[in-house]
Amino acid sequence: MRKVKLTKESTKDILETLLKRSPNNYGKYEDAVANILAKVKAEGDTALFAFTREFDKVEVTKDTIRVTPEEIEEAYKLVDPSLIDVIKKALVNIRSYHEKQLQNSWFTSTTDGTMLGQKVTALNCVGVYVPGGKAVYPSSVLMNIVPAKVAGVDRIVMTTPPGKDGKVNPSTLVAANEAGADEIYKVGGAQAIGALAYGTESIPKVDKIVGPGNIFVALAKKAVYGYVSIDSIAGPSEILVLADETANPRYIAADLLSQAEHDEMASAILITTNEEFADQVDKEVRGFVEVLSRKAIIEKSLENFGYILIAEDMDEAIEAANEIASEHMEIVTKNPFEDMMKVRNAGAIFIGEHSSEPLGDYFAGPNHVLPTNGTAKFFSALSVDDFIKKSSIVYYSRKALRKIHKDIIQFATSEQLTAHANSIAVRFEEEDKENE
Amino acid sequence: MRKVKLTKESTKDILETLLKRSPNNYGKYEDAVANILAKVKAEGDTALFAFTREFDKVEVTKDTIRVTPEEIEEAYKLVDPSLIDVIKKALVNIRSYHEKQLQNSWFTSTTDGTMLGQKVTALNCVGVYVPGGKAVYPSSVLMNIVPAKVAGVDRIVMTTPPGKDGKVNPSTLVAANEAGADEIYKVGGAQAIGALAYGTESIPKVDKIVGPGNIFVALAKKAVYGYVSIDSIAGPSEILVLADETANPRYIAADLLSQAEHDEMASAILITTNEEFADQVDKEVRGFVEVLSRKAIIEKSLENFGYILIAEDMDEAIEAANEIASEHMEIVTKNPFEDMMKVRNAGAIFIGEHSSEPLGDYFAGPNHVLPTNGTAKFFSALSVDDFIKKSSIVYYSRKALRKIHKDIIQFATSEQLTAHANSIAVRFEEEDKENE
Repeated sequence: MRKVKLTKESTKDILETLLKRSPNNYGKYEDAVANILAKVKAEGDTALFAFTREFDKVEVTKDTIRVTPEEIEEAYKLVDPSLIDVIKKALVNIRSYHEKQLQNSWFTSTTDGTMLGQKVTALNCVGVYVPGGKAVYPSSVLMNIVPAKVAGVDRIVMTTPPGKDGKVNPSTLVAANEAGADEIYKVGGAQAIGALAYGTESIPKVDKIVGPGNIFVALAKKAVYGYVSIDSIAGPSEILVLADETANPRYIAADLLSQAEHDEMASAILITTNEEFADQVDKEVRGFVEVLSRKAIIEKSLENFGYILIAEDMDEAIEAANEIASEHMEIVTKNPFEDMMKVRNAGAIFIGEHSSEPLGDYFAGPNHVLPTNGTAKFFSALSVDDFIKKSSIVYYSRKALRKIHKDIIQFATSEQLTAHANSIAVRFEEEDKENE
Repeated sequence: MRKVKLTKESTKDILETLLKRSPNNYGKYEDAVANILAKVKAEGDTALFAFTREFDKVEVTKDTIRVTPEEIEEAYKLVDPSLIDVIKKALVNIRSYHEKQLQNSWFTSTTDGTMLGQKVTALNCVGVYVPGGKAVYPSSVLMNIVPAKVAGVDRIVMTTPPGKDGKVNPSTLVAANEAGADEIYKVGGAQAIGALAYGTESIPKVDKIVGPGNIFVALAKKAVYGYVSIDSIAGPSEILVLADETANPRYIAADLLSQAEHDEMASAILITTNEEFADQVDKEVRGFVEVLSRKAIIEKSLENFGYILIAEDMDEAIEAANEIASEHMEIVTKNPFEDMMKVRNAGAIFIGEHSSEPLGDYFAGPNHVLPTNGTAKFFSALSVDDFIKKSSIVYYSRKALRKIHKDIIQFATSEQLTAHANSIAVRFEEEDKENE
């Protein structure tokens, strides 16, 4: 890891380096994706099946595209029972945390007859995309489905590309079933996003699409945005650890590596006030890298996006952390709770020596779908909020409207919106004439 | 207005007609906008001033780009004092409503040492775009600034194109000042969006950009999205009135027209169970159109996107309303509150005979920036929620982590993320070795 003295300049440089990871130069795939989406929109299932044949080398039909109860039952037999137990335990925590995010409808009223409020409604139908391929992440299935389920979404539709044998990975199926997916379809790529956005004979049109995917999936989501809603496009994983000499360098090193292993674009940053501690962490990192199975990825990501920053004091360290706005932040300092209060920008904050980041990836309950690439300055973790919407409620009695009707007429008239003014005036035209 | 029998088919046709209004075929401007953004990013103020000279025909400099306290003072002298009073009264209501949207940070804890929560933080810096031109909407200035202010945003930066005299419209300035804009800059178009997204010598980089604008502004916002956050791109205005024979046809006609006057793409739809009532509304509409100042616009929008739908019963009417998911919905029926409960999709719901839609545009308190084009199925009104973000908080004691550490290790190992597993294992390596 590169050791750098923390200054406003070095922070700025690092930020610029990190932002270079943004998914940008993908223009060359945009036409291909647009073509897939247009075909699925126009031809429905026909196009969907054809693309699945072309890209996934699998024949699906109207009869086989949907995962059956029997296939789910079979999956349970194929997954290690103790892993199923772990999934169930994690689910209890994830559900419990997300239930606390539920928001109530509310209203206020006055005795002269006004009622104002907000009515909270769950989205009706949501699509959850789950990537296929060799890497299988049942934890991600849980994290994407649970908030929708807790929000009260009626219909949760999952799609995932089938393997060459035409089947879905069993632990994906178990996780989806446990989390509460209502329907699971064997289809992936941009064509799956098109099916969810427009609907086909087999697959219902949804209101929102969430879940990670490759570049084709990401571009397809971006293209259908507005027509349906989407979650934000996730960038490479990040961890920023704020630590002083009270921390255990071995633990910190292990935590930094837990994110570095995700992919070569992942970023791991330590900010510390103690140079000796920094060197200890660096040494531990070297030691771990040698023995970890994903050594090649880790070495690459540390080389490109791994930093140890030496700060003058904790306030300077926190200021830099707020600038970087990391997806994950660990605070392992003398007074971690006090330091946490000063943190403005971070997707998730892990406090103290034993709140290792992977605890949050799998088990504690908060969502592991988090804002990356500095977007923690304005975005939040995936949550129940993403699966609800709010309608404003307005009721005014005649008496209440009478009191202010001339104000509204004046305001509307000043904006030259005379039909607006008329809609208020017409309700009092006789009264106002009498009073003239 | 076209009178149509309500069926699943006719609802579908209308939906398709309405969706055609979506801003789509704007590709031809995309290159121009990309060029403006790139120049502002690279050259800062120099480009900003040059584009302002080119497009707005006004010379601004580092010394004159920011509106001065003296200019604001002058604006107060130019606006009708009774309009300033109305703006102040409206502000009290808008602020009061939005204050009820504030969300608290929360946490839960257990006695074996776990704390989980969500920390709510306001965005640091927000840009509010206000269009220039002949149409001036101080109400829109209030609606965009207040939720940011109430959320606790530190720095609210407004930009608006100057007139040819180099000045900003006085009622815009009064509204901005009353609502709490911290800084106001005389710059508009895609170049203003670029300045807010990237920062220039004169204008700070913001975290989120909100506010309506022309096609260049909309495309620029879309282009910088991800780098900063943006509000959703607003489409043409819409009203859907659900009414039965208990409603006053004259009021309903006036309310339909209040939205039809916005622009030629606006949509006004009445759904009723009573054909005689439908004809009365139609007659009143004809009468009003003749006398209203925006007759030409209204006639066009009614011709293209105005419908009177005759439903079999109220349930069928509500079902269609949920499909259409209108920006504004009025319910003027025998039991409007009961009917409201069945409404799933609408940006704002106005209940009863005197809750005319313009009451909400100007005065009641709820935000008038609302989801259009069917997006009320998944989007909400602009609110305090748009100016906050939430960080997950995770604290586990050693004791609490010990209980579940093997579960996490198993879960991570099953996903082949061995560095994740290692970060948990390392904390118990000695204990676990002893117990082996």
